Amino acid sequence: MEPAHITLGECHAIAMEVLTRHGCDEANARAVADTIAAAERDHAYSHGLFRLPGYVTSLKNGKVNGKARPTVERLAPTVVRIHGDRGYAPLALEIGRAPLIEAAREFGMAALAVTRIHHFAALWPETSALAEEGLAAFAFTSSPPYLAAAGGRTKFFGTNPMSFAWPRKGRAPMAFDQASAAMARGEIQIHLRDGKTVPDGVGLDPEGNPTNDPVAILEGAQLPFGGYKGSAIALMVDLLAGPLIGEVTSIEAGDVDNGDGGAATGGELILALDPARFGGDDPIAHGERLFERMLAQEGVRLPGDRRLIARAETPENGIDVPTSLWETIDALRAA
Amino acid sequence: MEPAHITLGECHAIAMEVLTRHGCDEANARAVADTIAAAERDHAYSHGLFRLPGYVTSLKNGKVNGKARPTVERLAPTVVRIHGDRGYAPLALEIGRAPLIEAAREFGMAALAVTRIHHFAALWPETSALAEEGLAAFAFTSSPPYLAAAGGRTKFFGTNPMSFAWPRKGRAPMAFDQASAAMARGEIQIHLRDGKTVPDGVGLDPEGNPTNDPVAILEGAQLPFGGYKGSAIALMVDLLAGPLIGEVTSIEAGDVDNGDGGAATGGELILALDPARFGGDDPIAHGERLFERMLAQEGVRLPGDRRLIARAETPENGIDVPTSLWETIDALRAA
Repeated sequence: MEPAHITLGECHAIAMEVLTRHGCDEANARAVADTIAAAERDHAYSHGLFRLPGYVTSLKNGKVNGKARPTVERLAPTVVRIHGDRGYAPLALEIGRAPLIEAAREFGMAALAVTRIHHFAALWPETSALAEEGLAAFAFTSSPPYLAAAGGRTKFFGTNPMSFAWPRKGRAPMAFDQASAAMARGEIQIHLRDGKTVPDGVGLDPEGNPTNDPVAILEGAQLPFGGYKGSAIALMVDLLAGPLIGEVTSIEAGDVDNGDGGAATGGELILALDPARFGGDDPIAHGERLFERMLAQEGVRLPGDRRLIARAETPENGIDVPTSLWETIDALRAA
Repeated sequence: MEPAHITLGECHAIAMEVLTRHGCDEANARAVADTIAAAERDHAYSHGLFRLPGYVTSLKNGKVNGKARPTVERLAPTVVRIHGDRGYAPLALEIGRAPLIEAAREFGMAALAVTRIHHFAALWPETSALAEEGLAAFAFTSSPPYLAAAGGRTKFFGTNPMSFAWPRKGRAPMAFDQASAAMARGEIQIHLRDGKTVPDGVGLDPEGNPTNDPVAILEGAQLPFGGYKGSAIALMVDLLAGPLIGEVTSIEAGDVDNGDGGAATGGELILALDPARFGGDDPIAHGERLFERMLAQEGVRLPGDRRLIARAETPENGIDVPTSLWETIDALRAA
C-alpha cells in the first residue's frame, strides 16, 4: 500500500468516521476530529492521526465514554467547572470556553476546572483558542506516572505539560506547550525505532540507574527537564490539575488506570487573564515590540513558530500519512 | 576581623540601621529588613545580608526611592494594582497583600499587579505569605537582561524567576522559587566570591561561547534552565510582569537602568487562587497525601524543604556573617 496523501478535510472526515464507528456520538467525534485535524495541520504528528487507534482502544474497552455530555457549573464568580462525564477532553473544553471567556472579561480573570476527562492531545489548542479571543491563558494537566521526581529512581509524575498562550495582533497567538520531561516520550520511541541512544539526562533504567538506552528508559522512568526545576513544575501541575479541582494526581491516576496506553481519567486547569484589565497600555502592541526585539537576534525563534509555519502550508500541501498508520486506520474504518 | 556571629534579631536591627542611615524611611527600611532577615533565617544567603550593600548603592545614587508611598487601585474585580512609587518591593507587597487576599476569597482568584518597584530579593516570601493564608499563589518578575534566549548568544531576558506556593496543614507552605536561569545569578556571584568555577550549561562568555568562568558569564550571558523550555518560561515571565501590567520587559529595563548592579524599576505579577472555591474535596488534605507518597521515595525532597529546615534551626543557631561581608556592613554602619 502506498503512503496516503490526503487533504485536511479528508483527515477530519476519516477521524469522524472512525470515531463514530467505534463508539463516539456526533458531538464527541467532531470535537476530537477537530483536535486531530488541528494537530495534523500544524505537523504535530504525535497528536494527530497517530493517536486515532489509541482513541479507539479506550472507547472500545469502555474506559472512555464516547457519548459524554459535559455539564457546566459555576463554583465561584471566577471559577467555571466542567464535568466531563468521562469523555475525551475536546468537547468539554469546547463547552467550557464561552463561560470561561465571559467570566474572564467580566472579572478580569477566570478559571476553568475540567474534571472527569481523558486528555489525549496537546494543550496548545485550548490556550491558543483563548488567546485568539484576546486572553492570555495557562493550561495544566497531569497523566499516569512516567517521570521520576528529582532525586527519585522510579516514575512518580505524569509528563505533566504546561501551556501558555499570548494574543498577537493580526496573527496566530504565541503559544508554548511543554512537558515536564527532558525529552518527549514519543521522541524516545523514535530514537528506539531508529536504533539510536538518547543523550544523558533523559531517563533511568528499571533499577533507577542513568542510561542512554531508550528501551530501558521506556520501562524505567523519564527524567524531568532542568533537573529539580522541571520536577517542581511537575509537582505544581499535579496540585493544580488534581487536588485543587478535586481530581487525581499522577500517581493516583496510575493506581486506577486500566493501562491500555490511552489517557487516564483526570483533570485540567485553565486560567484566562484579560490583558485589557491589568493596567498595561496596549499590552498586545507592547508584546509585539518584545517579540520583534527577540527575533532580531540571530538563532532565536518564538516558541511554537514551527507549528505556525506548518499551519500556513498544510491547506495547500495536504497531509502525508505513513503507510503503516494508513493501514491501521483503514482496518479501523472497515472493522 | 573575626567572622561575626549574630542573632536573627541583630541581623534585622543591623539591616534597619544601615537602610535608614542611607535613605530609607522607617516603613521602607522595616519591610526590606524583614525580607533580609527572612532570607538569612532560611539560609538563602544570596538574598540576605549579602544584598545589603546593593540596596544601599541604589538608594544613594537615587535610583530607588527609600521613602516610597505605594498606592492601591482596583483595576477590575479581581485585579489589584499597587504603584510602588519607585521603592523596594517589600513595602508595596505588604500593602497589596490584604486587598489581594480579600479579592481572591470573594471571587475565587485574584491578581496583584505591582508596578514601579525594584525587586531585589526572592519571590518565595510573597507566595508563601499568601499560602500561609490558605491560598495557592504564583509570582513572576523580570529584571534587566542577564540570560540568553534559547539559540541566542547575548543576554536578552532577566533571570525571570517564577514562584509557586501551596498551603499545608499545620506547617509552612510548600514553595518553590526558581529563576529561568540554569543557575541563579546570586549563586554565580557566590561562586566568584569563593573562587570556584561553575558547571557546564550555566552561561556564555561575552563572545557567546560556553564557559565555566563566573567572571566571563557575569560579563556575558547566563543560559536558561532546560534549554528552550526555560527560555519559554522566561518569555512568559517577561510578558506577565511587563506588557500585561504596563511595566517594562527585561530588555527595556536594561535600556533605562543605571547599571549599578541593583534591581531596575520593573513589575511583578502575583496570582492567588482560593482552593476552597475550585471544587476539590479538602484540597489541602489531598495535597498532603501527594506529598506523603512523594516523600516515601528514597532521595526525594519537597521543593523548598532545605529552607524550612534552616528556618527551624536559625533562631537557636544564629547567623554567621563572612568576614569580608561583615567588614563591608561595618563600613556602611559607620559611613
